[in-house]
Amino acid sequence: AIAARATEFFMEQQEKDAPLRGKKILVTAGPTREGLDPVRFFSNLSTGKMGYAIAEQAARLGADVTLISGPVQLDAPPNVTIVRVVSALEMRAAVLRDYQNVDAVIQSAAVADYRPEEAHAQKIKKQDGPLLVRLVRNPDILKELGLKKEKQILIGFAAETENLEANAKRKLETKHLDLLVANLAADGFATDTNKVTFYFANGRYEPHQRLPKHEVASRICAALAALFEESECQ
Amino acid sequence: AIAARATEFFMEQQEKDAPLRGKKILVTAGPTREGLDPVRFFSNLSTGKMGYAIAEQAARLGADVTLISGPVQLDAPPNVTIVRVVSALEMRAAVLRDYQNVDAVIQSAAVADYRPEEAHAQKIKKQDGPLLVRLVRNPDILKELGLKKEKQILIGFAAETENLEANAKRKLETKHLDLLVANLAADGFATDTNKVTFYFANGRYEPHQRLPKHEVASRICAALAALFEESECQ
Repeated sequence: AIAARATEFFMEQQEKDAPLRGKKILVTAGPTREGLDPVRFFSNLSTGKMGYAIAEQAARLGADVTLISGPVQLDAPPNVTIVRVVSALEMRAAVLRDYQNVDAVIQSAAVADYRPEEAHAQKIKKQDGPLLVRLVRNPDILKELGLKKEKQILIGFAAETENLEANAKRKLETKHLDLLVANLAADGFATDTNKVTFYFANGRYEPHQRLPKHEVASRICAALAALFEESECQ
Repeated sequence: AIAARATEFFMEQQEKDAPLRGKKILVTAGPTREGLDPVRFFSNLSTGKMGYAIAEQAARLGADVTLISGPVQLDAPPNVTIVRVVSALEMRAAVLRDYQNVDAVIQSAAVADYRPEEAHAQKIKKQDGPLLVRLVRNPDILKELGLKKEKQILIGFAAETENLEANAKRKLETKHLDLLVANLAADGFATDTNKVTFYFANGRYEPHQRLPKHEVASRICAALAALFEESECQ
């Protein structure tokens, strides 16, 4: 009886220290780059810090983490499998390759919404006068994941410059997310801190103060652990 | 007499060790970013490594160096004044501010040739269907420096994907450069080495082997010292 209680205690402790143990989690991070020619591209200001911090924290909490990263200047976090990609199409392929086998996806990457319709094989020579570039929509990876969703928990991000709440709620719904982490673009891009609000699928929301990104990462991982618990109790 | 000869010897040694002493040199480095909205931009693959290596070497050879840098992930080299800019228009302003007071400009920055005609104050919302972006020509900083040239020595770079020699010679002439450092884009972008050819205004050219960028920087600084000597002998 004592042995049984010790085992139980040990498992409870482990559960507390490693609430994501046994979970396979995909984290995406960074911007994507959309080539116009061999040297020119479209991109955005994402540094990848938020996603890398989430991957690091999820691994620390026991998860089996794959980090799919756009081009950033960061070292791979410890105990994380890293897959490096450049464009949105490459990121989509990498995410879909793993999707059936994972328990959650945290899409923190700032995937480019558009890419140049034509990626020129040679450098475009300068000409007098303007250059018209036709950008076409990239696939909406998160929406696709929402449509193909089985048991996976989906967490998305929204960086907006205005109408934060309305945009966040619409995104939560149209993409079948379990949690949307929303911030004003000026609050989170290319900084070491972020000021976010969590919007949950059940309508609940949690505004957080400005926090270091590793602390935002901890709260996201804690929210994920709670979402796993809820889904297992149903 | 011995004292005079000692002084002479000392000055000769100093001249040998510090052939750029007393020279004010502007070096530009990195890409520029051309904003489409607060988070999206156009840019290119330049890492700034070549320009930072040149600035470092020129300072080591005694020059008074100002490094005007686009957004890169590099620390400022020792003994160099650094000015950080983002866009081509900012880089132009920073270069022109100093131009009258310098003895040479080494334009290694990959200044974006085009910028979006309109930089939106708010993040552009995704829409269905393509997005047409009208890009307008940025001012050609190097050409402007060529036209306003007094005593300054001008060194430019050309990264081409084809027709290296013809493009290089045309650029040398139309921009009134003293030296053009030409390479194939694939040989020098986002790598630690470069394979360059020097094209001089007098028609002479020097192909170099693939070399680490700091060694290419040494050869550029040596060529600059020789150009200073020539111009002082005339």
